[in-house]
Amino acid sequence: MSKLITGGLGFIGSHLARKLVNAGEDVVLFDVIPRSRLIDDIRDKVKTVQGDLGNWAQVLEAVKKYKVSAIYHTAALLSASAEEAPLAAYAVNANGTFHILEAARLFDVETVVFLSTIATYGTGIPDRVDDDVIQRPTTMYGVTKVFGERLGEYYNTKFGVNFRGLRFPSVIGPGRGGGGASAYSSLIIQEPAAGRPYEAYVDEEARIPLLYIEDAVQSMVALERAPAGRLERRVYNIEGFSPAAGQLVASIKQHMPGVQIRFSPDPEMVRIVRSWPRELDGSNARNDWGWKTRYGLEEAVSHFIKEFQARRHLYE
Amino acid sequence: MSKLITGGLGFIGSHLARKLVNAGEDVVLFDVIPRSRLIDDIRDKVKTVQGDLGNWAQVLEAVKKYKVSAIYHTAALLSASAEEAPLAAYAVNANGTFHILEAARLFDVETVVFLSTIATYGTGIPDRVDDDVIQRPTTMYGVTKVFGERLGEYYNTKFGVNFRGLRFPSVIGPGRGGGGASAYSSLIIQEPAAGRPYEAYVDEEARIPLLYIEDAVQSMVALERAPAGRLERRVYNIEGFSPAAGQLVASIKQHMPGVQIRFSPDPEMVRIVRSWPRELDGSNARNDWGWKTRYGLEEAVSHFIKEFQARRHLYE
Amino acid sequence: MSKLITGGLGFIGSHLARKLVNAGEDVVLFDVIPRSRLIDDIRDKVKTVQGDLGNWAQVLEAVKKYKVSAIYHTAALLSASAEEAPLAAYAVNANGTFHILEAARLFDVETVVFLSTIATYGTGIPDRVDDDVIQRPTTMYGVTKVFGERLGEYYNTKFGVNFRGLRFPSVIGPGRGGGGASAYSSLIIQEPAAGRPYEAYVDEEARIPLLYIEDAVQSMVALERAPAGRLERRVYNIEGFSPAAGQLVASIKQHMPGVQIRFSPDPEMVRIVRSWPRELDGSNARNDWGWKTRYGLEEAVSHFIKEFQARRHLYE
Amino acid sequence: MSKLITGGLGFIGSHLARKLVNAGEDVVLFDVIPRSRLIDDIRDKVKTVQGDLGNWAQVLEAVKKYKVSAIYHTAALLSASAEEAPLAAYAVNANGTFHILEAARLFDVETVVFLSTIATYGTGIPDRVDDDVIQRPTTMYGVTKVFGERLGEYYNTKFGVNFRGLRFPSVIGPGRGGGGASAYSSLIIQEPAAGRPYEAYVDEEARIPLLYIEDAVQSMVALERAPAGRLERRVYNIEGFSPAAGQLVASIKQHMPGVQIRFSPDPEMVRIVRSWPRELDGSNARNDWGWKTRYGLEEAVSHFIKEFQARRHLYE
Repeated sequence: MSKLITGGLGFIGSHLARKLVNAGEDVVLFDVIPRSRLIDDIRDKVKTVQGDLGNWAQVLEAVKKYKVSAIYHTAALLSASAEEAPLAAYAVNANGTFHILEAARLFDVETVVFLSTIATYGTGIPDRVDDDVIQRPTTMYGVTKVFGERLGEYYNTKFGVNFRGLRFPSVIGPGRGGGGASAYSSLIIQEPAAGRPYEAYVDEEARIPLLYIEDAVQSMVALERAPAGRLERRVYNIEGFSPAAGQLVASIKQHMPGVQIRFSPDPEMVRIVRSWPRELDGSNARNDWGWKTRYGLEEAVSHFIKEFQARRHLYE
Repeated sequence: MSKLITGGLGFIGSHLARKLVNAGEDVVLFDVIPRSRLIDDIRDKVKTVQGDLGNWAQVLEAVKKYKVSAIYHTAALLSASAEEAPLAAYAVNANGTFHILEAARLFDVETVVFLSTIATYGTGIPDRVDDDVIQRPTTMYGVTKVFGERLGEYYNTKFGVNFRGLRFPSVIGPGRGGGGASAYSSLIIQEPAAGRPYEAYVDEEARIPLLYIEDAVQSMVALERAPAGRLERRVYNIEGFSPAAGQLVASIKQHMPGVQIRFSPDPEMVRIVRSWPRELDGSNARNDWGWKTRYGLEEAVSHFIKEFQARRHLYE
Repeated sequence: MSKLITGGLGFIGSHLARKLVNAGEDVVLFDVIPRSRLIDDIRDKVKTVQGDLGNWAQVLEAVKKYKVSAIYHTAALLSASAEEAPLAAYAVNANGTFHILEAARLFDVETVVFLSTIATYGTGIPDRVDDDVIQRPTTMYGVTKVFGERLGEYYNTKFGVNFRGLRFPSVIGPGRGGGGASAYSSLIIQEPAAGRPYEAYVDEEARIPLLYIEDAVQSMVALERAPAGRLERRVYNIEGFSPAAGQLVASIKQHMPGVQIRFSPDPEMVRIVRSWPRELDGSNARNDWGWKTRYGLEEAVSHFIKEFQARRHLYE
Repeated sequence: MSKLITGGLGFIGSHLARKLVNAGEDVVLFDVIPRSRLIDDIRDKVKTVQGDLGNWAQVLEAVKKYKVSAIYHTAALLSASAEEAPLAAYAVNANGTFHILEAARLFDVETVVFLSTIATYGTGIPDRVDDDVIQRPTTMYGVTKVFGERLGEYYNTKFGVNFRGLRFPSVIGPGRGGGGASAYSSLIIQEPAAGRPYEAYVDEEARIPLLYIEDAVQSMVALERAPAGRLERRVYNIEGFSPAAGQLVASIKQHMPGVQIRFSPDPEMVRIVRSWPRELDGSNARNDWGWKTRYGLEEAVSHFIKEFQARRHLYE
């Protein structure tokens, strides 16, 4: 039996793969791209399948072939790429998630762990959003993720597919790369750690909720393993921390005093970032299955820098 | 230029078709079934296309061929049939709505009017639900309709497709037919009007929000024509009336004193009906584009009986 | 383990179902229509699944659920209906066959028996066509059936799916019904057997290759069971008999002397019928796996009339 | 109005693009990959669209957006890649071609030029194959290309889509790259031209039909422009030349005397190459629309070397 990670060659997928490999699991990575430096250190410890989530037959073939007991469904066209190619996003994010759920049903996969996102919430909502805030997303990414949540819940009640989802804030960590309005929150650490100056496209007051990659990965594993009786719902907000960009810089400078970080706000980027919720309320995850985020601002910055510098060949 | 009605041979679609034909419109009916008595009186005044919403090419062909200026998208696998065939419902309701939106975008259709439903709301919500209540549907019908709402909103903001939706309560009227837990609300009138006794599967206290077919049809037309500047949102609850089943019977007996209606509650049906919201709050439709429901309990029952008896050959 | 028949409620499918039921098999009928008189006598001895071949998930669900060991894939939009709805034919005949082959591969179905047709041959070919005549079909039905043959052969060599196909001439028998230019060959027997006069739309010289339903069904079963080592190819012409329409009438009158059959040729129909091959050469089926057609003109007419009259309630 | 080239960033597509740009056409390149060195010199003279042929909505969007008057449909998963990923090949080659044909029909594209291949012929055929040899391909590439031919012919007769196809032998030229058993025929020239030794995986007697890229591109343009009245069929073999590998080397050495080319036959590759037809008979193209191949062995080798060395930055 193996664990299949969709998007396994991506940022979150590769960190999760490493975690599972270290835990002794048989890991299969399903991704549309054929290779990635991000898995250089575990390449010979995992299996990889190149395939397209929008192609149901490829999805089913992989799930059957590797006798999959759990699917971590992290693959999606994310915010910015989905806006550039919304028709591709429909195929991958909406139909792709249907393919995953059907594969799970048809081949008796025990658990499907689904990544959802703060982008499922829209505008005009409280600064702090809990699991019961209305979801009116404004992007194709958000629209298809809300659909994935509802469809997964339905597969759970109708077909008994053990669907479990997490709504993440922006995940930061080494290898996150550029792209999307939240990219600054990782680059502002990674670029200086690489010895390069960084010019942020937001202002010092910009404040979005973040989750460190170690917590992101750990919460997925914890939710997969949580006793069924503990779950009062199928999708949970995961709470991180919400530093202003200026606070991020202050923390970075404690570890790397001489770094050059400038703010050169792009008005459009500032507007987008301001439209997001300030904080995710993750109390249901805490209360129901005991999830506790470990990395706050300091811990995240510290670990990020060390990890990046220790294995820089993986991350750029 | 013509108006295309998906599900045009169904209950709501056929009543809408009659209304549009009478208003002098060129009307095209798209339906998966080849014929229906419900359009017997207008058959030579409309065009019909047999096709499957799940088949994108058939949808696009129809929209192109008939130079469609507005699509009334009423077709869907409804509550009960979607639960029996959820995989068909995914194809028709989810992908079918995507096909309609793409057809509108690719062939420059001016307006898409989308039927949504009270079934998009789930359980654990207030008795009276307004447009901002959280939607956590428990059926494939509801799940796919929520998706249709979000996707339509996205096509509006992203591509400028003039998407407009209405969330209906249970629509009653002649020709509604059986199927689904809300069927009693039409059959309790139609069966006695046909001279047959009726045994209701709910109890006298059962109370669900209803909308009379004349209002349903009229609200669709009104929303299609509402000035763009008046719309503060893209999907609106439409408010009707919410009589207890016993009240329905009392009203029916005013018109047909000797009818035989008995209550023989089926516990499962009672449970389903009780899980629904008691009332839809339609104040946004009223305030934004001036919608006013005309048929209350008395008017609906009276018109229903007269219409059924006047053109019984259409309705059974 | 069970045998699944796609198009199981159709003409060939229902006759095959009866044959398999009588042989003690567990039989599952997959069809897009919900019911058919043609299986009235075996309804409680088979399982039926309503589904759409164009919907991969419904196909896979059925194959998984019933632990299918062999699929008889008889469903298709036939000649005339495919010309009326070529986009539906693409979905059902082309993609539907892909879905069947994938289902077989994913769920380890032992054998797929595929119905192909004389309509895969086009025009400008010899009067007598063997398995090696070039296939240049002129209809969507033919185009998609050629594709099914080639795709099935590929699944055989590439994936080891035990694909076996038969190219039938026009199959005649009780319950064949109208539709398509070859319909006369069954109706000319069935209508008189029902006591009605029949007016043929072809002329007395019209001559197309026919196969009696008993042989059609028997050849499918025989090919499913033929030892693998005997097959030199994957698709075989099945040879029947090719009477002129006038000969058909003469044979019918031997059994029912007073019948009224008139010829009133429709030029378009005559043209179509003349464009077909006169004879199928089935020598490879005979030589490789020992198939022998049993019903010639006399036997077919005789059995047809008796069968129709004995169980007329099934056939009209 | 513009000309759209699917696979526009590939080997044949990019050479064709250059030809059309030089002829003053508006050219749009549709490709699944985002960029390619092969179009470096014409990048600012063409439009590019990243999209997936398997995604009908992306195909239709491109055809609509750019007011396409002709589609050159060169994109496909080729021989080797289709064998590695047959399920992707089904989506791209089979359904993708359907998408192209539908796009042409729905958006009134005047002409579709389709690339077919010698790989549509199977084994057991004459050494010299003309347009009427039976096609029984043994690869997914061949199976889907035969389907494309038949489907295109059908769209021509049924819907009036002006479909025209060419069956190419192995096309050689700068930028052809590796991959597939025929790769040697380009690499054996390109590698020495780049100053590198080359070790061929076939033997000196290996002989497959070749077509030089200039002729390939020119024949597509000529067929697009051929008067309709000249075409007796929709798909034509294009004849090139069929040198033994040893002859190729002799010709190369006339231009580059000191090159190092060794033969180190791989038995599997030799087997594959031997299974192909020796020669394509292109007499119908010659007779019907006057096509004349200009590049024989000497001309091809000479032009290849010069072109490669003149613009080496494009080709590797």
